[in-house]
Amino acid sequence: MSDKSTRTELHELGEFRLIDHLTQKAKSNNASTILGVGDDAAIIDPTGKKMVVTTDLLLEGVHFDLTYFPIRHLGYKAVVVNLSDVYAMNATPKQITVSLGISKRFCVEDLDELYSGIYLACEKYGVDLVGGDTSTSYTGLTISVTAIGEANENELCYRSGAKINDLVCVTGNLGAAYLGLQLLEREKKVFEGNPNVKPQFVGWDYILERFLKPEARKSILETLRELGIKPNAMIDISDGLSSEAMHICKSSKAGCRIYLEKLPIDQQTFKIAEEMGIDAIVAALNGGEDYELLFTVPIEFHEKILALEGVSVIGHITDESTGAFLVTPDGNEIQLKAQGWNAMKKE
Amino acid sequence: MSDKSTRTELHELGEFRLIDHLTQKAKSNNASTILGVGDDAAIIDPTGKKMVVTTDLLLEGVHFDLTYFPIRHLGYKAVVVNLSDVYAMNATPKQITVSLGISKRFCVEDLDELYSGIYLACEKYGVDLVGGDTSTSYTGLTISVTAIGEANENELCYRSGAKINDLVCVTGNLGAAYLGLQLLEREKKVFEGNPNVKPQFVGWDYILERFLKPEARKSILETLRELGIKPNAMIDISDGLSSEAMHICKSSKAGCRIYLEKLPIDQQTFKIAEEMGIDAIVAALNGGEDYELLFTVPIEFHEKILALEGVSVIGHITDESTGAFLVTPDGNEIQLKAQGWNAMKKE
Repeated sequence: MSDKSTRTELHELGEFRLIDHLTQKAKSNNASTILGVGDDAAIIDPTGKKMVVTTDLLLEGVHFDLTYFPIRHLGYKAVVVNLSDVYAMNATPKQITVSLGISKRFCVEDLDELYSGIYLACEKYGVDLVGGDTSTSYTGLTISVTAIGEANENELCYRSGAKINDLVCVTGNLGAAYLGLQLLEREKKVFEGNPNVKPQFVGWDYILERFLKPEARKSILETLRELGIKPNAMIDISDGLSSEAMHICKSSKAGCRIYLEKLPIDQQTFKIAEEMGIDAIVAALNGGEDYELLFTVPIEFHEKILALEGVSVIGHITDESTGAFLVTPDGNEIQLKAQGWNAMKKE
Repeated sequence: MSDKSTRTELHELGEFRLIDHLTQKAKSNNASTILGVGDDAAIIDPTGKKMVVTTDLLLEGVHFDLTYFPIRHLGYKAVVVNLSDVYAMNATPKQITVSLGISKRFCVEDLDELYSGIYLACEKYGVDLVGGDTSTSYTGLTISVTAIGEANENELCYRSGAKINDLVCVTGNLGAAYLGLQLLEREKKVFEGNPNVKPQFVGWDYILERFLKPEARKSILETLRELGIKPNAMIDISDGLSSEAMHICKSSKAGCRIYLEKLPIDQQTFKIAEEMGIDAIVAALNGGEDYELLFTVPIEFHEKILALEGVSVIGHITDESTGAFLVTPDGNEIQLKAQGWNAMKKE
């Protein structure tokens, strides 16, 4: 956060000037944005398309730790995790609203940093910031983002559309964000024990970026569209592959077989996992925060999909009666389990 | 909150079963709701209309105090304050999303109460709960609601449309919610000093309800539509009449004169204000949380507006160069000031 030399307290601006200050850089990239910030509500004209709406809440201490999370990256990530949900419907994100709860620990310069990340994500993904709410908080930073996108009706992909024999595909690789988080937590503990020890982050850029500054899988959807491949079912991986595969099976009334040896895992993920004594496969299955897309396509697209960079075929959809299972390299089957967040568990 | 005898801990259900449990009563009242809870995003079909989007964040300790705020009413209010913003655009609310941050202090039965209030508001105003996010929190309850509405383009009312000589009108009455809050805070302090003293709430039902269970001004908009009156400018009163009148003047590049003797104030508001040594006029101007509509109409509608129950003409719009002023009964003029929230002020 901002050092004391350039610290403008929030009360120096007050609510309305603060909102003006933070939203002055909001510009419209989309014809569908009729009115943005500055009235009781934003106005959107989807011009005949269907609209999709999704929302995510990020709470300090639960979803992020500002001792190692650069606040600019946090703004970027808060937007991207919502856009990922819009892409998972095979829709194009167009607008976002951002609500903030801010404690007095934060100054105007901190919020400028946060918003620079928000605007960077808006710029990169072509979405408009059209509204929000700004409030004081007694307990740190709260960020609530809602994203709105649009699609033609026949383009939309649901969780529920998987068909028997569909190929189960995943973009990018899995488990990296989880191990990025574990590394940050480990170095935080070392630093707390001895503030003279410098954190050991050299060589781990990729896994750190996967956690601190994830990207949404916009381009792969464009590629699939160009190839004439429409997924039967799609979901984004926020809770971990296991949970998301379960969601697709449950919604589609289907089973699946996912082959552990097919899971895409980056070299850095394997390396740090070994160093930290964590099973990289388990991280890939249950780590979460990957923001990759898990989707199923008819088997006739097998060759086209195999030729695609950044997409792995990891299994196939089966009849519901056969259940949802992971298959180990030696042919054993392990039942899939949905994890969800663990934080609600009794301590 | 729920007593110990019927307390189901959140971890007993886990995330996904909790979401299923809370959203199973969500039903679709609107043809525009294509898909609600249960996928990465909700799907909405506005069928040619313009869409409006607004969002509000409610934080425990800042916006509500559960020692006296029934959690069912809180759910109701969290929805209504967002719908009020949609009505203030002269649009019809259709969908909401609700995101919750929940600490372990709360059990499933508490959330059932909260959602019963949310569903009651949905039922009353004909809106559909279509999505949200559920998360743990270390610091009490966080509620983020986004509301989506629709309108024909020519029906929309902006803050910026006020014209010189327009009548300034307000629905219902002002200051009651603020005094309801003051009464609750007073009785809370008395109770904390001596838990044997029963709170003195008899006879104050109206002002308490105005704070604890406000309603949005849906019906007055229907009446105006039937009469063929379209406001030139409109805003809902969440921060207090002064702030909102300033917003209209600033956005419309206009001035105004608002007559203090014309401010609609309920008898109970006057009575409790006197008892508590608070100026009822100041409460009406700056108290906030009224969720009434402030709007301007062309002067030709003067007679029609005067004949309307539940609407008061409190002033008129002037040229920008004349400024925005309150006029006292003896003809003095006091410059209007926008207050915003005070919580950011330095203590």
